[in-house]
Amino acid sequence: MKKIELIGLDGIGEVHRGDSVGQLICDACERQQLALADGDVLVVAQKIISKAEGRMVALATVEPSARARELARELDKEAELIEVILGESRQVIRTGGRAMIVETHHGFICANAGVDQSNVGLKQVALLPKDADRSAREIRGEILRRTGKQVGVIVSDSFGRAWRVGTVDVAVGVAGMAPIKDERGLKDRHGYELKAAVAAVADELASAAELVMGKRDGVPVVVIRGYDIQIKEEGSVRELLRPAAEDLFR
Amino acid sequence: MKKIELIGLDGIGEVHRGDSVGQLICDACERQQLALADGDVLVVAQKIISKAEGRMVALATVEPSARARELARELDKEAELIEVILGESRQVIRTGGRAMIVETHHGFICANAGVDQSNVGLKQVALLPKDADRSAREIRGEILRRTGKQVGVIVSDSFGRAWRVGTVDVAVGVAGMAPIKDERGLKDRHGYELKAAVAAVADELASAAELVMGKRDGVPVVVIRGYDIQIKEEGSVRELLRPAAEDLFR
Repeated sequence: MKKIELIGLDGIGEVHRGDSVGQLICDACERQQLALADGDVLVVAQKIISKAEGRMVALATVEPSARARELARELDKEAELIEVILGESRQVIRTGGRAMIVETHHGFICANAGVDQSNVGLKQVALLPKDADRSAREIRGEILRRTGKQVGVIVSDSFGRAWRVGTVDVAVGVAGMAPIKDERGLKDRHGYELKAAVAAVADELASAAELVMGKRDGVPVVVIRGYDIQIKEEGSVRELLRPAAEDLFR
Repeated sequence: MKKIELIGLDGIGEVHRGDSVGQLICDACERQQLALADGDVLVVAQKIISKAEGRMVALATVEPSARARELARELDKEAELIEVILGESRQVIRTGGRAMIVETHHGFICANAGVDQSNVGLKQVALLPKDADRSAREIRGEILRRTGKQVGVIVSDSFGRAWRVGTVDVAVGVAGMAPIKDERGLKDRHGYELKAAVAAVADELASAAELVMGKRDGVPVVVIRGYDIQIKEEGSVRELLRPAAEDLFR
């Protein structure tokens, strides 16, 4: 019987600039008497990493450009917010209704460049971490130092999708594991050679963790136990980004 | 401590036309001594439902149209396969490289209309169930009769995405539960009113289950225990389909 557990980590509490998220996680595991094991995956909500890394902007300090003011009128949003989004964006992919879909400097295509107003305090916004692979590696390193255990780490955020309603959580940073499981060329039980069998397992792990996190429940870290990760020292979220030349929907 | 378990159901075995998937699931639960509980979610791979419902086509019996032959040359695929895909499609959304993205008669936007050659035997293809909400309701009804328990049921398939590499499993049918969790209008811990808090939980549950299913492991049913589903008698996968008029990527 295959079985996977998704375990919410309690008591991380409010995270402040300069905090070590890795230390907060190790402390919370100790309080919860949860001994991390080799092959566990830790999914960490982007928000607490952005707070720890100081990736917060007070909208009152932002001076909107002419372009931001124009887009703000078109989309019925605050010009200061649009200015922040444009600063995080490589290009605007689509606008329509109140939606603004951009490509971030990291290469993510998502609404509002991942800039988020929830759970950060009024009149503030949280930006995505500058390099969430690095953030994930730092957490992984801290866990290795404290516990001697080799875990995979995923930094997650909630992204909308084309064609379907609602968000699902996906990986925006990865450390210590392969984010995709590629079974192309292997054969199924009938001898058919699999052609499309590339599963975005880091995204699926992030989505699974969201079921425990929720949007308002204050559970920013989930331990996933029992999933057979493929250990990969140099694993990166970049492996999940489809090259523009191969993308039919830009 | 919030905790969710993903439990693979063993020994479903090969499914044949006319089988009752609900009965197969109940039998497997009994053999595994897994007592289903109210609020459990069962995620069932589309493939076994398609087999039970006879949604299989032998490619040798298909006569390709002129359009199918032309697309087959363009995309370097079998004309018979293209003919089957076109028959399952309301419209072709994009073609490019070897990819063919369509809108199915159900309203799903996905590659190849969900027509799949893996795990079905050589020279055969599996179509999506005609109405996977109904398939899910039948499974739910059988479980209720046999065990008296109210469960949620999700029929899942692996879909590619725009912009990101690899597939994630999503819901193609739903019964007994709300497929989205809508927290818009509620306030976060700082008093900020959530604006974008619509989570596609049925898709996240499907993705979580895929981590247990795998592509070649023969685990077509996963029981998810501990997730707080919102019971909704008339829940439907249609709630997950973004109306064309609100979609920026068609």
